[in-house]
Amino acid sequence: MVKRSDFEFITVPAGEPGAGEVLVRVLYLSLDPAMRGWMNAGKSYVAPVGLGDVMRAGGVGRVVTSNDPTLAAGDLVVGITGIQDYVVSKAAGLRKIDPQVAPPPRYLGALGMTGLTAYFGLLDIGQPKEGETVVVSAAAGAVGAVVGQIAKIKGCRVIGIAGGAAKCSYIVDELGFDAAVDYKNEDVRKALARHCPKGIDIYFDNVGGEILETALSMLARRARIIICGAISQYNSTTGMVGPRNYMSLLVNHALMEGFVVFDYADRYPEGMKALAGWTIEGKLKAREDVVDGLETFPETLLKLFRGENFGKLVIKVAE
Amino acid sequence: MVKRSDFEFITVPAGEPGAGEVLVRVLYLSLDPAMRGWMNAGKSYVAPVGLGDVMRAGGVGRVVTSNDPTLAAGDLVVGITGIQDYVVSKAAGLRKIDPQVAPPPRYLGALGMTGLTAYFGLLDIGQPKEGETVVVSAAAGAVGAVVGQIAKIKGCRVIGIAGGAAKCSYIVDELGFDAAVDYKNEDVRKALARHCPKGIDIYFDNVGGEILETALSMLARRARIIICGAISQYNSTTGMVGPRNYMSLLVNHALMEGFVVFDYADRYPEGMKALAGWTIEGKLKAREDVVDGLETFPETLLKLFRGENFGKLVIKVAE
Repeated sequence: MVKRSDFEFITVPAGEPGAGEVLVRVLYLSLDPAMRGWMNAGKSYVAPVGLGDVMRAGGVGRVVTSNDPTLAAGDLVVGITGIQDYVVSKAAGLRKIDPQVAPPPRYLGALGMTGLTAYFGLLDIGQPKEGETVVVSAAAGAVGAVVGQIAKIKGCRVIGIAGGAAKCSYIVDELGFDAAVDYKNEDVRKALARHCPKGIDIYFDNVGGEILETALSMLARRARIIICGAISQYNSTTGMVGPRNYMSLLVNHALMEGFVVFDYADRYPEGMKALAGWTIEGKLKAREDVVDGLETFPETLLKLFRGENFGKLVIKVAE
Repeated sequence: MVKRSDFEFITVPAGEPGAGEVLVRVLYLSLDPAMRGWMNAGKSYVAPVGLGDVMRAGGVGRVVTSNDPTLAAGDLVVGITGIQDYVVSKAAGLRKIDPQVAPPPRYLGALGMTGLTAYFGLLDIGQPKEGETVVVSAAAGAVGAVVGQIAKIKGCRVIGIAGGAAKCSYIVDELGFDAAVDYKNEDVRKALARHCPKGIDIYFDNVGGEILETALSMLARRARIIICGAISQYNSTTGMVGPRNYMSLLVNHALMEGFVVFDYADRYPEGMKALAGWTIEGKLKAREDVVDGLETFPETLLKLFRGENFGKLVIKVAE
């Protein structure tokens, strides 16, 4: 687990934007489980955050000064801002957002990278077909909640696994999932067996560990497991645990495929258009868990690993 | 591990073939790692062999008497015969074989279910493309040897993992693999890293365990892992081990897919035609490890789990 002493808050000049660049006042910051991985040394899908570097983070901000014709002072933008108050960024690395479609923090969640993660993982790897049974873990989380709603839009039967009665009633009563399994208060295996009498066609995994094994044990033939994350494992001090019953893939002619959203960068416009469309139509709901104050970052991040956030976790840096 | 006292050899009348049935003298029996799984209770891709049942096995035999117009006395056939001297079988469950194409035991190996296993697993799941790097474990085994040769036919660079110098030189010098890794005498990780400088595009896994983890640790982007078996795990008394670094699938947008050959039953003729064609052209070589005597079954089977067989393991029951 990260702790406050792993970070240092310092004050330095923000810098001046050069040609093609803008100075942005950061307003909201995205907190993501993947951040923990970015702090590890070693080869991965992005370079690790180096010691002394600004912690990488997505953010929404307002342009203060612009040296690029595509953005003007006052524009709201989203992009990689880092955990800081201001950022000097290439204008080309930012995207203008429309606060008429949804409040700005949503562009870090359901209308941002987490929404795109759900969209491409479920649709491209999962290939859901009408009537199939879809199970998603961390179902009240930023990715899981969108996965379940897109699966419903595609005509699937959707079961979400979440922790606690409030999250479970949220995904069923507000988001329209067919059923919820409360992993903190019931036997996940028995509950899933009850809700998935014909087995699981698609399992969208955000958690790894025992719940992944449980899903593997009840796959339907030709099932697809989408490996999006393994939050139960990221802070393990004894090493990752692999799914002991992975031979269920053989027995059921099933597949397990991983991805990161960056793999789909060339299709972001398609995904954004679909997510915004469903949001406007009222078919895609979301909530953000907003914590005030840049300086809370180390402790706020831990909420993710304790399952304490309810909806997309963001830090509000400024109005 | 199975032991002799798990089996009983009994003598009973062979029975008379009814309409549409034939009586077959069994000549050769196929020994397969999957047999160990068939002895376990519980749901799998086929029903377990029950206590007191004839042990399931593929076999080649000669028709003794026929009550079906499609087969005549003297025909050589292949099918599920069980570990026994004679079998009464429906003629529709047997296929005639041509001893002009290859010696009869080959129809239990490269021209039989193991050849088809290699063919469909590699081509349907692996989708090899020219110039890709293919790694196969148990490469001198009945499935692995065919996998590597088909991958060569498809223009891939092929590295086989096998145990001992004899098997390693066989797959390179006789079967035309590009390289061999001797897991009994060298560091598999270092050797694979040396032979796969651009990573592994396709890993065909017959063994599971540490070698699966090693392959996972050096995947190329969009790699495909074909789960065909996990022979290192079948006799474990401490439970299966899952691949701890399965998140490599996420980092590399890779997939891991399992299958059993029966999934492709409707495409067997396609596969048989290709395998026989390559055999006639001299592009697909094979060897069988022939052990004499039906009564050796319990001990002969163990050769598979000790890696002692060299080529497709068969028992010769009669001339």
